[in-house]
Amino acid sequence: MIILKLGGSVITRKDATKPTLDPVNLDRIAQEIARSGNRKLIIIHGAGSFGHLHARKYEIGSPITTPEELERKKMGFTLTQNSVKNLNHFVCHYLLNYEIPAVAVPPSSFIITENKRIKSANLEIVEKYLEMGLVPVLYGDVVMDTDESIQMAVVSGDQLVNYLSKELQPERIILGSDVDGIYDSDPKTHSQAQLLEEVKSMEDLKFLEGARTVDVTGGMAGKLTELLELAGKGIESELINVGCEGLLESALKGEKVRGTIISKQ
Amino acid sequence: MIILKLGGSVITRKDATKPTLDPVNLDRIAQEIARSGNRKLIIIHGAGSFGHLHARKYEIGSPITTPEELERKKMGFTLTQNSVKNLNHFVCHYLLNYEIPAVAVPPSSFIITENKRIKSANLEIVEKYLEMGLVPVLYGDVVMDTDESIQMAVVSGDQLVNYLSKELQPERIILGSDVDGIYDSDPKTHSQAQLLEEVKSMEDLKFLEGARTVDVTGGMAGKLTELLELAGKGIESELINVGCEGLLESALKGEKVRGTIISKQ
Repeated sequence: MIILKLGGSVITRKDATKPTLDPVNLDRIAQEIARSGNRKLIIIHGAGSFGHLHARKYEIGSPITTPEELERKKMGFTLTQNSVKNLNHFVCHYLLNYEIPAVAVPPSSFIITENKRIKSANLEIVEKYLEMGLVPVLYGDVVMDTDESIQMAVVSGDQLVNYLSKELQPERIILGSDVDGIYDSDPKTHSQAQLLEEVKSMEDLKFLEGARTVDVTGGMAGKLTELLELAGKGIESELINVGCEGLLESALKGEKVRGTIISKQ
Repeated sequence: MIILKLGGSVITRKDATKPTLDPVNLDRIAQEIARSGNRKLIIIHGAGSFGHLHARKYEIGSPITTPEELERKKMGFTLTQNSVKNLNHFVCHYLLNYEIPAVAVPPSSFIITENKRIKSANLEIVEKYLEMGLVPVLYGDVVMDTDESIQMAVVSGDQLVNYLSKELQPERIILGSDVDGIYDSDPKTHSQAQLLEEVKSMEDLKFLEGARTVDVTGGMAGKLTELLELAGKGIESELINVGCEGLLESALKGEKVRGTIISKQ
């Protein structure tokens, strides 16, 4: 089984001022998954502009100090949940168009966090869907938190990748975003930046401040922290550019493609 | 806490040849819920034309005899799940428009049936949303079944009402559909038909064959069986016409409105 993460940056217009799909990318990605023939998959997608705008506006996950703030955050919680569910609906719709048997499994209906980290999640349903040959689709969502001071939290797609990988032992983890992988310096500001084939620790990177994109789930730094923690447990993952035609299809077929492998030190 | 069921017949065009919303009814119903001021609610809605067309076409819940049929049903399962999720998305959207803090909790992500009856369902999340003052919204959905011969089943909104009522002990159960309640004979064919204020057993009805509408979840007979089983355990429920302006608002405010009460014999 493969865990495939589709970054919010590639299936939505992440810098849009309102939730905006990237239907061209999404359609092509669904086609590539279909053509790869690989159906032993869990797909996890990010929230992109469907989640970050709301989560940031309502500061889901930050401490609640007044009853008014609780009321405001509760409304923000429901609006965020509704918005990311909307994105998930598009994702499933495109997958089904290419006869990928996608089944939505929203984190907000089975996951609870403790201080923003997944505390309990009954994965029985996800495992049963897999056994049946269906493709569970999870996504970055808002969930309830047991910490009284925050009560609600954001669970990013990257945290889901981390949790599900530890629990379900996938054969491979593929993380698709709109960049080729990890560079030794920020390619946007350094013309000499080199793509790293392998990253084993945060020390391999010189540029982290440049990679902190505006992203409530922590941007590249947050992503790497999750992946390095996994690597430390012997679970490798690969970052590839799914914005680039053909790479995802090849990767799902088991071919080696351009990207960065996150592995054990 | 009140469990409010919204029948698929009232929020969708149930006899449409493709999934079709009834936006006028849905908008008014959302407004009435908002105006009632009642927020200690679980809302359960039927699938109407968003579910029955698919479920019937793919015969979800009927025995699987060949591998081809399994493949066909698996695709049918995913298409049905996607379609009812779409209806739920509309419902939540309308509720949120009137600032009702709706949170979708899809049965397919936390319920498993055994020979078409709910076997396990972790209601912890539903209870936590209620505690927080949010309004969980569940709906008629497809789920996995432990019976090897069928593997998948439909869970109707009525079965959900039955299960959740037994587990969560609501103060009231209101079932809203597009009819005034239960009549002593079929009002469509008998001009003298009388609305029954109370029903205590199937024997109170003379007309059941007339009430068996084309409905994979069993029509009125299936609905009554669920409700009489509840009544037998001392849990009363009331059938009202939510297609009729004002009745739902009054009922949610605790007023007595026209309808039928299903009570213990």
